[in-house]
Amino acid sequence: MREQIFQIMAADPRCGARRARLTTAHGVVDTPVFMPIGTAGAVKGVLPEQLETMGAQVILANTYHFMIRPGVDIVEKLGGLHRFMAWDRPILTDSGGYQVFSLASLNRIDDEGALFASHVDGKPYHLNAEIATDIQNRLGADIIMCFDQCTHYPVAPSDLDIAVKRTIQWAARCKQAHANPEQLLFAIVQGGIDLDLRTQCARALVDLDFPGYAIGGLSVGEGHDHMIRAVAHTAPLLPEDKPRYLMGVGTPADLIACVREGIDMFDCVLPTRNGRNGFAFTENGPVRMRNSIHADCDMPVEPGCDCPCCKNYPRAAVRHFFKYGEIQGPILLSLHNLTFFQRLMAKMRTEIEAGQFKAWADEQLPRYRSLYEA
Amino acid sequence: MREQIFQIMAADPRCGARRARLTTAHGVVDTPVFMPIGTAGAVKGVLPEQLETMGAQVILANTYHFMIRPGVDIVEKLGGLHRFMAWDRPILTDSGGYQVFSLASLNRIDDEGALFASHVDGKPYHLNAEIATDIQNRLGADIIMCFDQCTHYPVAPSDLDIAVKRTIQWAARCKQAHANPEQLLFAIVQGGIDLDLRTQCARALVDLDFPGYAIGGLSVGEGHDHMIRAVAHTAPLLPEDKPRYLMGVGTPADLIACVREGIDMFDCVLPTRNGRNGFAFTENGPVRMRNSIHADCDMPVEPGCDCPCCKNYPRAAVRHFFKYGEIQGPILLSLHNLTFFQRLMAKMRTEIEAGQFKAWADEQLPRYRSLYEA
Repeated sequence: MREQIFQIMAADPRCGARRARLTTAHGVVDTPVFMPIGTAGAVKGVLPEQLETMGAQVILANTYHFMIRPGVDIVEKLGGLHRFMAWDRPILTDSGGYQVFSLASLNRIDDEGALFASHVDGKPYHLNAEIATDIQNRLGADIIMCFDQCTHYPVAPSDLDIAVKRTIQWAARCKQAHANPEQLLFAIVQGGIDLDLRTQCARALVDLDFPGYAIGGLSVGEGHDHMIRAVAHTAPLLPEDKPRYLMGVGTPADLIACVREGIDMFDCVLPTRNGRNGFAFTENGPVRMRNSIHADCDMPVEPGCDCPCCKNYPRAAVRHFFKYGEIQGPILLSLHNLTFFQRLMAKMRTEIEAGQFKAWADEQLPRYRSLYEA
Repeated sequence: MREQIFQIMAADPRCGARRARLTTAHGVVDTPVFMPIGTAGAVKGVLPEQLETMGAQVILANTYHFMIRPGVDIVEKLGGLHRFMAWDRPILTDSGGYQVFSLASLNRIDDEGALFASHVDGKPYHLNAEIATDIQNRLGADIIMCFDQCTHYPVAPSDLDIAVKRTIQWAARCKQAHANPEQLLFAIVQGGIDLDLRTQCARALVDLDFPGYAIGGLSVGEGHDHMIRAVAHTAPLLPEDKPRYLMGVGTPADLIACVREGIDMFDCVLPTRNGRNGFAFTENGPVRMRNSIHADCDMPVEPGCDCPCCKNYPRAAVRHFFKYGEIQGPILLSLHNLTFFQRLMAKMRTEIEAGQFKAWADEQLPRYRSLYEA
């Protein structure tokens, strides 16, 4: 009998949170999990061994970026993304759908797929369910995503309706095209903040039977409350025994709130992008490293943190690196912020195992919201 | 009895090469040694733990840069450079002399010292023997350098003569001003490629009795042969039982040739600066990572190298990072090049210990010259 792909080890009866293990071709992922983003083949400024040290279990890479450069052929010739990214643990690739709508110049989109011009050099590309699946088959990530149609917020109801219909049709085509049984193909639920459309999309995709489901099209400007409402509505529509992945989310409060609603996987650029800009996440709120208050501060960025930044450097040095454009600043804060996110997820896993997640979340959620939305 | 500061463990009777141990307040340095440069508080893109892993024993920091930003007061308040740079092994600071002449806008220089405008914001600064020594006392490096007057190449004989005289006078004043017995104050021999002036400067400085001596004012355009000639002439004028440091040198061939002449310590920006520009040092010659020949190459940058770049990444990925501006490229090649330089020095130490250095150097020197000067 085949090993169970997604094994739930503990669930909090007082909320949706669950603690599980997702088995992939390159190893097991303990969920709830946060996935650092290695857009173009690297988590910017962070080496694979540093990701391992901080406890990162699975990283994300972007199909769109690899398609444009260096090109799928080169990655495939080298043996796939794991070799190219020097990462022999699980990798997830998105389908390119999000970038086509957010980054590229979209020339045409219809039921067939999308024609767009690369954001790099304007070169024309074609992406549809079959092509996105084939590319991901060749890139060789452990988890791959269905090609979907994303929408902006706000969006006209008729456009949202079309996007949901296409996302469902395309998911069926992706499943049909998927040719590598080593890879888990996840479907993506769209529907914006329209709960009826979310229901419609989730039901149709569940009928198609995927090994995992994502919730897409959120964290695009709708705000925390709308986002949580959509997640709280959609998560229970997805099979309990399959992993649920909330794409592109989020802040510490978002992560806590969505684990409480039953989400298992997250990815977000926040820790690395903010880190590069001198913004540190800590348990006691943001620390903005360019602030002159840190000029002669001997404290670590976050006391008690064991990351290579906090373990070694005083804030004064980190501030100095940011103030004077030394690359050490972005490197150190990327390491710290990713470590902070990994620590937050590990804490949530422990709280779920201990049966105390709901109480912990009810206490931490308002605290983190006020710290990071002030 | 005080421990011997510089202990020679082996010397090659067929040339000047020697294998020694230099004891400093933050530990022992095995020489011949190459010191990575942490100009503004960090070896750009490389973390302290990565420097330790590659075997770096002592790093260099620039007094001039710290004086301008963040300022000596801040570093001193934090407890000194070791805390600021997160490096608890030996540190060497230069005196600022070189940067005053190469980087700043020099407003006035006379026997007293130098008035200059910072290269950053034009702010006026004053540096002389006493100030440079006081700053270095407060920065707290293990090895500090006398304030000297550097010259360009070529230089008018009268200017060179003045620079040598001042360098000697300033060395005496630095010794007088030096107020921290934990720090070793090295004197710097100037004199360009004028061997008589080198003799004059070396003898005067030796009479003043320092715990170590540097040869400065080389690698400024005079070329390998002139440089080696000046080093071969000057090194034997320095006490055999004191460390000899050749400043700002050099290529692999330079290092081999100068160890053969009896040099114990080196520093140079080549491995990091070239690394950031996509130029890799290898045993078999330069590898220019932007070259399209590497686009689908599965080989490491240097086969057999155990650095975080070569151990993990194919050339295709490193080339991709450089071609598309991913910060991973400069980080990986800085790590590789510094590892290459550390390996080269370790090899030389081993060859000296084995009594085979001269034969090894005679074989490797022409090889490295042709590889890196082609």
